[in-house]
Amino acid sequence: MNDASFSGRRVVVTGGLGFIGSALTRELVKREARVTVVDSLVPECSGSRANVEGIEDNIRIAEVDLRDRERLRPLLADAEVVFNLAGHMSHTESMHEPLVDLELNAHAQLALLEACRSLDTRPTIVFASTRQVYGRPRSFPVDESHPTEPVDVNGVHKLAAEQYHALYHRVHGFPVCILRLTNTYGPRMRIEDARHTFLGAWIGSVLRGDEFEIWGDGTQVRDFTYVDDAVAAFLAAATSPRAVGRILNLGDERYVSLRALADLLLAANEGGAYRLRPFPEDRKAIDIGDYAADYSAAREVLGWRPTFSLEMGLPRTLAFFREQAAVRA
Amino acid sequence: MNDASFSGRRVVVTGGLGFIGSALTRELVKREARVTVVDSLVPECSGSRANVEGIEDNIRIAEVDLRDRERLRPLLADAEVVFNLAGHMSHTESMHEPLVDLELNAHAQLALLEACRSLDTRPTIVFASTRQVYGRPRSFPVDESHPTEPVDVNGVHKLAAEQYHALYHRVHGFPVCILRLTNTYGPRMRIEDARHTFLGAWIGSVLRGDEFEIWGDGTQVRDFTYVDDAVAAFLAAATSPRAVGRILNLGDERYVSLRALADLLLAANEGGAYRLRPFPEDRKAIDIGDYAADYSAAREVLGWRPTFSLEMGLPRTLAFFREQAAVRA
Repeated sequence: MNDASFSGRRVVVTGGLGFIGSALTRELVKREARVTVVDSLVPECSGSRANVEGIEDNIRIAEVDLRDRERLRPLLADAEVVFNLAGHMSHTESMHEPLVDLELNAHAQLALLEACRSLDTRPTIVFASTRQVYGRPRSFPVDESHPTEPVDVNGVHKLAAEQYHALYHRVHGFPVCILRLTNTYGPRMRIEDARHTFLGAWIGSVLRGDEFEIWGDGTQVRDFTYVDDAVAAFLAAATSPRAVGRILNLGDERYVSLRALADLLLAANEGGAYRLRPFPEDRKAIDIGDYAADYSAAREVLGWRPTFSLEMGLPRTLAFFREQAAVRA
Repeated sequence: MNDASFSGRRVVVTGGLGFIGSALTRELVKREARVTVVDSLVPECSGSRANVEGIEDNIRIAEVDLRDRERLRPLLADAEVVFNLAGHMSHTESMHEPLVDLELNAHAQLALLEACRSLDTRPTIVFASTRQVYGRPRSFPVDESHPTEPVDVNGVHKLAAEQYHALYHRVHGFPVCILRLTNTYGPRMRIEDARHTFLGAWIGSVLRGDEFEIWGDGTQVRDFTYVDDAVAAFLAAATSPRAVGRILNLGDERYVSLRALADLLLAANEGGAYRLRPFPEDRKAIDIGDYAADYSAAREVLGWRPTFSLEMGLPRTLAFFREQAAVRA
């Protein structure tokens, strides 16, 4: 699809009831796309119909597992773009239940692509991958040529799913772009626990007035993407002809230590507390150390750059959850 | 296991009714190991009880699918070494039936490792991987630091299986060595078709007195391992303390063009014919071009080097199949 306007376009969003998927869906609705959300609502993946509250009437929601090819195929039949965000994100859980992760992150992805292969058309596909495919950075910041040596089962399966997408581009002719996301945060992120990112658990804690924990000594660095910026990258990836066949990091030139991030969160919250504690053993075994992305390829190919600093994004995120709690109270 | 003697050792060979697995099993029996062969005998994998003819009484054969954890677990319970050779090898079929390949090469491998994780012991595991994980060589010869960019679904899944093994070593403490095999040939290889290697199909043709086909212009190069040399590498990988945690190529310093190989085969056969034809489309899409391994790491770590030249191995292979045909006639 080479037209940056989405008006009237038939678009499928897998994982569209999830955190980033629902944000993308909301933006597509604003742009008057005809959106089909495909989401299995399996408990592991934390999608929720609440995430599309207010736009339900403007989208089609199909509660379908990607592995169910018979039900999936007709949903894809006339799609021009497939934003493929379905998946399971927990690194720790992937080590405890690797066969579940295999089903949700490899089998489901391959089944989706097989359903696409059976179509007469070749929709553009944008796949949401993750920095986790790199494993422990050998160089810093990490660009797309960095070796892929995942340190957990989740990373192994996300990498396999990337490679499926690359094959279906090269062998079967699908226009495909792969985005490797870093820690993404914002409204509707999971804050009940650290399943999506530790920052979600931190935000949940400060909202409840609880102390949160930094694992390690707090010097480890990470980069962050506000969800609206991630959404902009997905839209650009689907519409930039030069994105076809590319793997592109998202990231930020600014990276912060966990301790600096914690202080930014307390400042945004105007209060709160945290403490340092040693890494839990099961988490330490799969930790990747410092990470920050070199996203210059995305800048060059998509014209993308992050526009929300943590000073802007963190208060917005907290405000969203406060407002939501107030409405529900 | 740090003792090079296998006498009395409890060893499991997965895929032990297959081509390389049965050769390894025969050698282990010679060395008086207590061998359990685990093989699902699924039609795609071309294992056969005929491959262990003559040694049936010296081994335990369990017709068990690796995905069947309940039946698998007791077979592994007292193993000191697991030679893990189960898998599906066809590159072309993996593109036509990718979900089958997922089951046989990823799901089965992860299930095996999960069964191992549930043990009280930590057997040494040697995993049979493939040069296919590299994809199209960017440099030549290919050493283990070469990027892994598989060009077909089979390569994606073999790479995922490698990465599982690496994780179960690093996170769960299994002594693991991964061997990346190149084209392996010899007695009991599959010669009905090119499912294992094109050389198998060529050998089948010359034995039947048929012309065989070289795809492409015949200048493409490959390296080859005679099955006895591959077996020696597996044994060394299980017993060399320095092999733990390593990924090691097998290969040969000599690499030959397909045309030169064809001429060697005709010389070994004392007759025959071949012709050149363009690559079939589905095969061309996943062809990797020239390949030869740098196996200096295996030489250094295992003290391994190939001892059978093509001039020695090809006649032996042909003689084996002729003798077998004579016995059965």
